[in-house]
Amino acid sequence: MATSLHNHDAEEGLDFRPKFDASGLVTCVATDAVSGEVLMVAHMNDEALRKTIASGEAWYFSRSRNALWRKGETSGHTQRVMEIRMDCDQDAVWIRVEQIGAACHTGRRSCFYRKVDGGEGGAKLTFVDADKVFDPKAVYRK
Amino acid sequence: MATSLHNHDAEEGLDFRPKFDASGLVTCVATDAVSGEVLMVAHMNDEALRKTIASGEAWYFSRSRNALWRKGETSGHTQRVMEIRMDCDQDAVWIRVEQIGAACHTGRRSCFYRKVDGGEGGAKLTFVDADKVFDPKAVYRK
Repeated sequence: MATSLHNHDAEEGLDFRPKFDASGLVTCVATDAVSGEVLMVAHMNDEALRKTIASGEAWYFSRSRNALWRKGETSGHTQRVMEIRMDCDQDAVWIRVEQIGAACHTGRRSCFYRKVDGGEGGAKLTFVDADKVFDPKAVYRK
Repeated sequence: MATSLHNHDAEEGLDFRPKFDASGLVTCVATDAVSGEVLMVAHMNDEALRKTIASGEAWYFSRSRNALWRKGETSGHTQRVMEIRMDCDQDAVWIRVEQIGAACHTGRRSCFYRKVDGGEGGAKLTFVDADKVFDPKAVYRK
């Protein structure tokens, strides 16, 4: 099949056929269904994607732990999935979730708690929306 | 340096030190600064990230074309960057943008124009917010 035809089918068709990368993963963006805020960016393998669709709870694949992972299974801070969308070439997934507690393992609501500002001496970070919702030491028993 | 200390610095510090993957890339999520909608997921290399910060326009790195790319350089559908955020481990970037025209090369405002529904016979896609803002054939002169 020609690449252009293949792309056309993937982009304009209604068949669900996620395009996993060489590691068997797609990128997943989770946003807060109420505020629209980006909560986290993570990865899903085929099993995580299927379990997410079937259960309505977010499942991911941890590259660092090389393991399937139900969001919140340790912390209790689960994600209830309100909507799942695929992008044009089906290698990225956007889920709109009802986040219980906080998405970030640092204890913040979102993983994106620092903004980047440019400047003469190079870019710098500043905390924004960085209040901790929970104490990671207590939750993860470090 | 111990991994935990390294992680602590990257997560709690204000030094901008993006963590590029083996291909020299970070993942970037672009959302509409007004509606909050996720427009696209793409990648940035060091140069794309620096140009984005310096210029206030979104630059990406195309893995398929293996080339730096200013968003909208062909279509005119540029992205003006209102805010840039880094995630906890600094391997993902969230940019809030003012999107001129449409983000998706298929002509839609967002790349995420299909939702996933589960079901007995397997998951299926449905078009949502899938109206075309422009005709890709005319814009890209295919």
